Amino acid sequence: MSDKKLQVIPLGGLGEFGMNCMAIRYGDDIIVVDAGMMFPDAELLGVDIVTPDFAYLEENKEFVRALILTHGHEDHIGGVPFLLSQINLPIYGTAFTLALVERRLEEHDLLEDAKLHTVKPGARISLGPFSIELIHVTHSIVSAVALAITTPLGVIIHTGDFKIDPTPTDNQLFDLHTLAEYGKRGVLLLLSDSTNVDRAGYTPSERAVYPRFEEIFNRAERRIIVATFSSSIHRLQQILDLSAETGRKVAFLGRSMLSATEIAHGLGLLQIPDNILLRPQDIMNAAPHKVVCIVSGTQGEPMSAMSRVAVDNHKSLSLERGDLVVHSARIIPGNEKAIGRMMNHVARRGAEVVAGGGMNPPVHVSGHASQEELKLMLNLVRPRYFMPIHGEYWQMSKHAALASHLYSYGLEDSFIMETGQILEIDHLGARKNGKVTVGRVCIDSGSIDEVVEDLVIRDRRHLSEDGFVIPIIAIDKHTGRSEGLPEIVSRGFVSMEERADLMNSARQVVARTIESSSSEERTDWGVMQEKIRADLKRFLSKQTQRRPLIMPVILEV
Amino acid sequence: MSDKKLQVIPLGGLGEFGMNCMAIRYGDDIIVVDAGMMFPDAELLGVDIVTPDFAYLEENKEFVRALILTHGHEDHIGGVPFLLSQINLPIYGTAFTLALVERRLEEHDLLEDAKLHTVKPGARISLGPFSIELIHVTHSIVSAVALAITTPLGVIIHTGDFKIDPTPTDNQLFDLHTLAEYGKRGVLLLLSDSTNVDRAGYTPSERAVYPRFEEIFNRAERRIIVATFSSSIHRLQQILDLSAETGRKVAFLGRSMLSATEIAHGLGLLQIPDNILLRPQDIMNAAPHKVVCIVSGTQGEPMSAMSRVAVDNHKSLSLERGDLVVHSARIIPGNEKAIGRMMNHVARRGAEVVAGGGMNPPVHVSGHASQEELKLMLNLVRPRYFMPIHGEYWQMSKHAALASHLYSYGLEDSFIMETGQILEIDHLGARKNGKVTVGRVCIDSGSIDEVVEDLVIRDRRHLSEDGFVIPIIAIDKHTGRSEGLPEIVSRGFVSMEERADLMNSARQVVARTIESSSSEERTDWGVMQEKIRADLKRFLSKQTQRRPLIMPVILEV
Repeated sequence: MSDKKLQVIPLGGLGEFGMNCMAIRYGDDIIVVDAGMMFPDAELLGVDIVTPDFAYLEENKEFVRALILTHGHEDHIGGVPFLLSQINLPIYGTAFTLALVERRLEEHDLLEDAKLHTVKPGARISLGPFSIELIHVTHSIVSAVALAITTPLGVIIHTGDFKIDPTPTDNQLFDLHTLAEYGKRGVLLLLSDSTNVDRAGYTPSERAVYPRFEEIFNRAERRIIVATFSSSIHRLQQILDLSAETGRKVAFLGRSMLSATEIAHGLGLLQIPDNILLRPQDIMNAAPHKVVCIVSGTQGEPMSAMSRVAVDNHKSLSLERGDLVVHSARIIPGNEKAIGRMMNHVARRGAEVVAGGGMNPPVHVSGHASQEELKLMLNLVRPRYFMPIHGEYWQMSKHAALASHLYSYGLEDSFIMETGQILEIDHLGARKNGKVTVGRVCIDSGSIDEVVEDLVIRDRRHLSEDGFVIPIIAIDKHTGRSEGLPEIVSRGFVSMEERADLMNSARQVVARTIESSSSEERTDWGVMQEKIRADLKRFLSKQTQRRPLIMPVILEV
Repeated sequence: MSDKKLQVIPLGGLGEFGMNCMAIRYGDDIIVVDAGMMFPDAELLGVDIVTPDFAYLEENKEFVRALILTHGHEDHIGGVPFLLSQINLPIYGTAFTLALVERRLEEHDLLEDAKLHTVKPGARISLGPFSIELIHVTHSIVSAVALAITTPLGVIIHTGDFKIDPTPTDNQLFDLHTLAEYGKRGVLLLLSDSTNVDRAGYTPSERAVYPRFEEIFNRAERRIIVATFSSSIHRLQQILDLSAETGRKVAFLGRSMLSATEIAHGLGLLQIPDNILLRPQDIMNAAPHKVVCIVSGTQGEPMSAMSRVAVDNHKSLSLERGDLVVHSARIIPGNEKAIGRMMNHVARRGAEVVAGGGMNPPVHVSGHASQEELKLMLNLVRPRYFMPIHGEYWQMSKHAALASHLYSYGLEDSFIMETGQILEIDHLGARKNGKVTVGRVCIDSGSIDEVVEDLVIRDRRHLSEDGFVIPIIAIDKHTGRSEGLPEIVSRGFVSMEERADLMNSARQVVARTIESSSSEERTDWGVMQEKIRADLKRFLSKQTQRRPLIMPVILEV
């Protein structure tokens, strides 16, 4: 029996939504599962994307054997370029997942040196003490897998993201049999997706949207425009099939839509009926009742194809009265208003909007398992230990509660972990034991210094609430006396025109602070800056109840 | 026949969510329906609440006869204090609505001079050429009404917010009969609530939550904590009744919860079973399985009672393992993350969270009519003209489309209006004709200068994205020459410590701009500031791809 310990260390995605990343360590061998990103909260001002802090991996660089990807969504692969720029580790995944990764690496100029290894579901990867099998699962993206990671202490099952779709559109059934076999032989630890744990019942099959699209295709008298995620290849397939059936041609709009469909088609994952494609430049010349446009940009992102179509600023498509726009996507929390604005523009152009929940049949279905599917996963795998993953704390708690009936089937414990906590397993059992450095890295993707410091974000937040006030005091370097009345510059605080009186009083306040200071204090600029800041803060807060950022500048002239 | 024109002028709430306000004018008489507020988008930095700009009413002060309120939700009454501080007009509404208004007026020290008139449903108000009847409707708040406004040109029906609940918990049925009579006699114009126009079918009755709460009360072994809107008196009644049945005592927590229940109880709208109330200070001493707490703060507002309970910072209630927290409220878009954080804290304390959609029976139902109810309203009223209200543009478009079958029943036209547009009606018919000044007023509720200028908000937005850079140049007033190297202060842009090099180069850039300027340019500070700003902007954008707010200061010393 081994005396080494197994450690399971979430580096992102537990207790937070997105940027999933998990390290699994046995002795001096580490493998990493997924390296995702997340889109920032509104309070992360000026930040475009957030990735996990990979410090733990960098510190243990020489032990890191490989990165294994479960599927190609941004919250699982979006951090890969940032991880790769720190450690050029080998990457394993299905062909489609790696094709999406390639595109991102190319953008970051990292593709040439990357070590990408395509693996098929059913195949095994051997990495030091680990043997990893990829198991096909159903999800809203094609080529998604769960992982069975065999370690000297037992098998870990990592579900990735999944739902159990009984009727997938590509007829590639969820591989229940392999999971069942592992479950029968005994599983040490199950890590399972908690995203939809608050939904009762089963998530509808991807096929559930077909009748709704059928209804739309039957009644639409002019163009049909579908906004959907470019990676939802199953959704695209259904729209293509319906278009072929109803004699419509299909144009793809948007950079990510073009590249995802090209990749999927190249890999045989998307069947494009003969002669169905319409070039974007031909849309406006085709008969409107013969046109379908599939467009990326479901979240109201300002530069996306769909947003540009909505404000009539797209070079290939101009909406007209009677066109029909379908929003076939989840609304990611925080984007409601941007999506609403986009739909208003569409409606102003006289096009009909089909969107929103509560429709039956639905125009969009989730890719994540609901409660009954989560229980099925638990019952198939029957693990000794259970760790819910991919969710906020309250979701993982609920998921752990779902597993409680398994205590009579050998479940010994469930662990609700947060990013950075270590789950340690040895021949005595499993326990939480210690922490590693984790955190988030904020990235301003357009800028050259990509990483935005926390301090800078804190300042921006302060500035965004009440603006700034900067008193400027000129000191004569020979006499040490201040020259004239201090200047004050300010923005984002109060209207300078309407409150000129306030600014004049503020100058007097600063002047008095200087006058009333001892000559000893005046020799120490740090002290003077602090005194001026404190007095001015008190004055402005009393006058306005606002707390601008105050930053006195003393200029020696 | 009258030769005066009737004008219907939305001052808020059309094409935007919240701050509903509608002016109705006939000749020189104006009445106002509702004066709501909205909570700001995240991009309105430092703004707490937004009200309509009441400029049109102020300009026509002498013609404004009264304000009539349909019900007591914030998006219908929240702007009343701001309107009243401009025009002290008489206010009409039901007793409960006016009691909520009183509380707000008291906070703003406006109650003493306010002219409040309680009106019962079924009663009529005579105001110049207008005769107004209040018609009882069902909604998520008690004492909600629609208005039948008789004018010399015909009847306008304004639905307020409504759903058609066939089984309201207080057995006060929606007054279909009065609406039917108006419909039979002929209605000139219908204004109807578009909030839920994208939901198929019927909105479930308020009673639909009862079985879910029954299930919760039956299985809970310790305390039950329900977070809900304080104005949802029907919801509170059901929880009180179930508590009485199951032998639990009830404590109300949160300022708005205490005041709303006191008002509703005082008006006989909330029945409090004998001996059921538990004082907050006694919660922790009572047997946990005998306690229910009804708590305000459903949206994760940081200072609300529920948020304080979640982080164990409430003086009367400390959550314990096995307690059960029910989130029985709508998630207002934009608040998902704050609510998620609150629920995580609850889960970390070992309490179970019951929340989220998709549960059947539901833990929350909407107060707004779905498509079948909207059609019923249209069919009952059978108006000559239709104007959808309370919704974004795309929702109002959909609502207008719902009415299209009525063209064979006398409907002549539907008008999708936006805030500020005038619908004009005379004996020739109805048409859009002109606009009035509208807008939003941004209010920083804690501050003394309550109104925040748009320019100030724009500056804050700029500051929040990339911070500021302020070059300071000292000019000798005798020689006109600059003294030494310019200073630069900056915050929220880049880390000043890590990028000291960048700041030094920036100082050189400014110095070069000054040196290379002609002596003529140097005499004009405005020109110099603009040159420095342009050169520095180009330099920083090239170096960092960021665009901070740049504000050169020239100091004469």
